Amino acid sequence: MTRVTVWNEYRQERSDPVVGETYPDGIHGAIGDGLREAGFDVRTATLDEPEHGLTDEVLAGTDVLTWWGHVAHDEVADAVVERVHRRVLDGMGLVVLHSGHFSKIFQRLMGTTCNLTWREAGERERLWVVDRSHPIAEGLGESFVIEQEEMYGEPFDIPAPDRLVLIGWFQGGEVFRSGCCYQRGRGRIFYFQPGHETHPTYFHPDVRHVIANAARWASQPLGAAPIFGNRKSPPEPR
Amino acid sequence: MTRVTVWNEYRQERSDPVVGETYPDGIHGAIGDGLREAGFDVRTATLDEPEHGLTDEVLAGTDVLTWWGHVAHDEVADAVVERVHRRVLDGMGLVVLHSGHFSKIFQRLMGTTCNLTWREAGERERLWVVDRSHPIAEGLGESFVIEQEEMYGEPFDIPAPDRLVLIGWFQGGEVFRSGCCYQRGRGRIFYFQPGHETHPTYFHPDVRHVIANAARWASQPLGAAPIFGNRKSPPEPR
Amino acid sequence: MTRVTVWNEYRQERSDPVVGETYPDGIHGAIGDGLREAGFDVRTATLDEPEHGLTDEVLAGTDVLTWWGHVAHDEVADAVVERVHRRVLDGMGLVVLHSGHFSKIFQRLMGTTCNLTWREAGERERLWVVDRSHPIAEGLGESFVIEQEEMYGEPFDIPAPDRLVLIGWFQGGEVFRSGCCYQRGRGRIFYFQPGHETHPTYFHPDVRHVIANAARWASQPLGAAPIFGNRKSPPEPR
Amino acid sequence: MTRVTVWNEYRQERSDPVVGETYPDGIHGAIGDGLREAGFDVRTATLDEPEHGLTDEVLAGTDVLTWWGHVAHDEVADAVVERVHRRVLDGMGLVVLHSGHFSKIFQRLMGTTCNLTWREAGERERLWVVDRSHPIAEGLGESFVIEQEEMYGEPFDIPAPDRLVLIGWFQGGEVFRSGCCYQRGRGRIFYFQPGHETHPTYFHPDVRHVIANAARWASQPLGAAPIFGNRKSPPEPR
Repeated sequence: MTRVTVWNEYRQERSDPVVGETYPDGIHGAIGDGLREAGFDVRTATLDEPEHGLTDEVLAGTDVLTWWGHVAHDEVADAVVERVHRRVLDGMGLVVLHSGHFSKIFQRLMGTTCNLTWREAGERERLWVVDRSHPIAEGLGESFVIEQEEMYGEPFDIPAPDRLVLIGWFQGGEVFRSGCCYQRGRGRIFYFQPGHETHPTYFHPDVRHVIANAARWASQPLGAAPIFGNRKSPPEPR
Repeated sequence: MTRVTVWNEYRQERSDPVVGETYPDGIHGAIGDGLREAGFDVRTATLDEPEHGLTDEVLAGTDVLTWWGHVAHDEVADAVVERVHRRVLDGMGLVVLHSGHFSKIFQRLMGTTCNLTWREAGERERLWVVDRSHPIAEGLGESFVIEQEEMYGEPFDIPAPDRLVLIGWFQGGEVFRSGCCYQRGRGRIFYFQPGHETHPTYFHPDVRHVIANAARWASQPLGAAPIFGNRKSPPEPR
Repeated sequence: MTRVTVWNEYRQERSDPVVGETYPDGIHGAIGDGLREAGFDVRTATLDEPEHGLTDEVLAGTDVLTWWGHVAHDEVADAVVERVHRRVLDGMGLVVLHSGHFSKIFQRLMGTTCNLTWREAGERERLWVVDRSHPIAEGLGESFVIEQEEMYGEPFDIPAPDRLVLIGWFQGGEVFRSGCCYQRGRGRIFYFQPGHETHPTYFHPDVRHVIANAARWASQPLGAAPIFGNRKSPPEPR
Repeated sequence: MTRVTVWNEYRQERSDPVVGETYPDGIHGAIGDGLREAGFDVRTATLDEPEHGLTDEVLAGTDVLTWWGHVAHDEVADAVVERVHRRVLDGMGLVVLHSGHFSKIFQRLMGTTCNLTWREAGERERLWVVDRSHPIAEGLGESFVIEQEEMYGEPFDIPAPDRLVLIGWFQGGEVFRSGCCYQRGRGRIFYFQPGHETHPTYFHPDVRHVIANAARWASQPLGAAPIFGNRKSPPEPR
């Protein structure tokens, strides 16, 4: 059974009543429930736990990590970011959600600012599948709607995705590369745009479906760990 | 001076009064004027000319070919398609416009059906630059608007573009990969979505700007022609 | 159980004693045996059967088609090429082997000449994995050796692969993009370079392993068939 | 005139007589001479200068930065790495040479370890052009030879290049992705593998040619600087 650790900043749910009412069990609670229903072995971890809940032991037992953060990216300890970074390169899957675009770990893996444009106006978003045979699109229709979402718009300062799976359309006139796949080291990374804290996005069946597909895709068997360094002799046979 | 041949089917302008009024000099006339203003050496060619105006001699003197067709793709002779195909692989640039997505030459180069969804409803389109440092985006703002266009929507059955430069947003709710770059052989290919025959799209300054940028990009100096075939001896020095 | 149809030209085995001794059951026999051992449901088809053994019914019952051809590419009927092309775009996997680079179906899907350089000198080849977490590399070491192979060298006139998995090193001094992945329509395509008819390449355990991995990868579940064409109304809800 | 700053660690030339004799004016001297001959406006900067010679002012006046480092990557101040990183994302080109694969700036931009395999045995290397119409390949033959180079081999822990231009063949049996292009933010990055400090690689005419082509490519005009952040209203016209 694939082991997913759902990481959440878990601050706004406790400080902002609107967020607290939207996600009474925390954003991690909603994401975790969706993954459990999809058959994953789920644990959660949050910022204010020791080591943010991401000890070496937890990471060693994690096949896929999902990441939601927003107002406290800077409080994530660099040592934990390093640890997660190493685990991703060593093969742990990573699913970065919504405002996690500005997390240290996503910036670290992308090498760019990951900046974008945004507007909080509860606009309708329609997400279109543009790579319909990608495993992350399995079981989706050609598009799906989120009635109210924060607008995230281009320009989005990321490396060109290895595979672009979803493009988002927003009522106000913007578009966004909303589902982006990357391979880094032995790890698979998926960025998925929906999930503003004041909207019940993580209860949406298609959103949950995408996250479950992404966790499945990101946890696929890895190649053997590479051996780097000095090769004193040419390979045999010559 | 870069030599562009503007190819047009040139049927609907003569058979449909709305199209004829929109493009009194033909769609090729409007596209050609835009390119001339941008400093290109322009000639035109149309379907009903002998060999569709695309003799070996014309193609040999063409650095970039632009292609607009719609209702008569099947009337383009296979021998001419072969000739154009060979010239593209040998380094001639190709800019495929709007309904040219279904032309034999584009299907031939892509290897897929190039099918898509569409709606004629004169909707507003906004085109967003998602690869802002690509030469084809040079001088554009972050987006531009076409007041009335035919909707072209995903799914769009093309190979994943080598570079995706523009994404189109349509009023009705659709998105489209509207500016797509490909390298095939020594030739550069750009697909650009706007240009329905009943709208004055090819008089739009930003559309003209994109086509001129595309012609410039597609005509850049080529590498030497490759030599294929039998290499009886390993390369020297060994 | 994944159903693989192993297609072979099957001419040189019958006309050239060296080839006949190397592959007494035909090249398709050797490839098929490797796939059967790996747990696939295998059938074979050859050029001189009616419709080259590739009827609509056979293709409908095929999840992945492997293709080996060499001296008789031109004898493959265009109607059969069309049929295979449609099935690939509709989701059938395709594994193109060695001199199949010049087959009509591969050229059709790539849109380029697929030309290359070559030398028959029985040189040692070493194939290096450069995308070690790709499913096609699963279970491979970092490289493997084929004691004698025909040299295939760059330039290789193909579109840049969606994923480049293997690079071949040849004793004489050449390199080659030896394992290339493409997605076209709903179908997955893998080109794999080894397999000259005078060498026992298709009995080599690592070569068989790659072909089995490729068949597994190319047969993965597909997204739903896309619906193209006129969308008279914008999508609901608006 | 394109302004190139050639950065060099410049330690081994002063501590190791073999290196000092190979590069009496420093590695930066040799690289700079090649670029001057190719018509660039060249300045140099080295590790032991204040701020490693890379002040804000120097970077503001630099169109393309080349980077060679080897034994003292850790001594490069993080603040300078940040500064260079920001400038690359803002459009300065970067050409990373040989052992610069392990520099902080390259790791930072790639998001991976950039690790590889190596062997110091003065082996012959042959570099093959696999993307013959890329501007960096302009004017090259189909391959070129370096009589003695350090072997750099796969696995090479980098993101899949946006464009792969060169593959290196080594006498001992290895291959390497030796010329890799990336776009990050508004900046273009090229990694080029040759250049061991004990071999006169940077006097080699083809190596110089590639570096000059790369500087030209990496300095091409940029799109306008993106504006990120809050868009309080949807774009006009709506």
